[in-house]
Amino acid sequence: MPVAQQYAMQYIHALTHQDYKILRTFYSRDSLFYDKTANVKYKGARHILAFFTRAHSGVLEYRFDVDHMFNNGSLVVLIGSYRLRGPGEQYGKPGKVIDIAVPGVTTLKFDMDKKRIVEHIDLMDYQTMSDQLASQ
Amino acid sequence: MPVAQQYAMQYIHALTHQDYKILRTFYSRDSLFYDKTANVKYKGARHILAFFTRAHSGVLEYRFDVDHMFNNGSLVVLIGSYRLRGPGEQYGKPGKVIDIAVPGVTTLKFDMDKKRIVEHIDLMDYQTMSDQLASQ
Repeated sequence: MPVAQQYAMQYIHALTHQDYKILRTFYSRDSLFYDKTANVKYKGARHILAFFTRAHSGVLEYRFDVDHMFNNGSLVVLIGSYRLRGPGEQYGKPGKVIDIAVPGVTTLKFDMDKKRIVEHIDLMDYQTMSDQLASQ
Repeated sequence: MPVAQQYAMQYIHALTHQDYKILRTFYSRDSLFYDKTANVKYKGARHILAFFTRAHSGVLEYRFDVDHMFNNGSLVVLIGSYRLRGPGEQYGKPGKVIDIAVPGVTTLKFDMDKKRIVEHIDLMDYQTMSDQLASQ
């Protein structure tokens, strides 16, 4: 597996396992997180980590089932589905446990020398998520 | 189907059927085409059309098999595989007919009022393409 793809797997593992100690090592002050479908953008380790900590608080299960991964140099593309089971508060379902599988594309641009994220861009199918939530 | 996705299908149809008369109507002087995996960028109707005309010259079959499509407002994400059968000249296979199916993600950002492409970004699995070409 190309090194860039190895970095991507380690990064996604840290992200979905909420291993913020490891995750932190992937960010610099210039790292950019951008959910292009939600139009949400954060810059720098501190803000990105604060966002993920908030977004994934209390989550029971979180993983990214990758259907296909490829890279060109330091740019890695991951196509798959984010599975999330957890408290429904942030999803308009207070008091319930929600279970969703959201199709998405994550692209990661690495600084290969420093093993840092330059740019993490998500494209998420929020319509499918919303359909799934409607019946929960 | 949301209007943005309808536009996307019409645009992809024109692109893959090499219907440059229709395709032209989707571009303005500010439209941007960016193949992020090849680091190829063109701005404006004239340059984008010239690129596609050149890239698809002589092609026998060209289509985008879409596995999954979703949108958030004017941003449409298409995940699938570009199938191309045609002369091998541009692929290092002169005198041969090549046949490739390249996994890819295309995102299209539309100006909905004018039915124009603001930004067309491709992410293509060129490693898979290269593997397929190796045996042809």
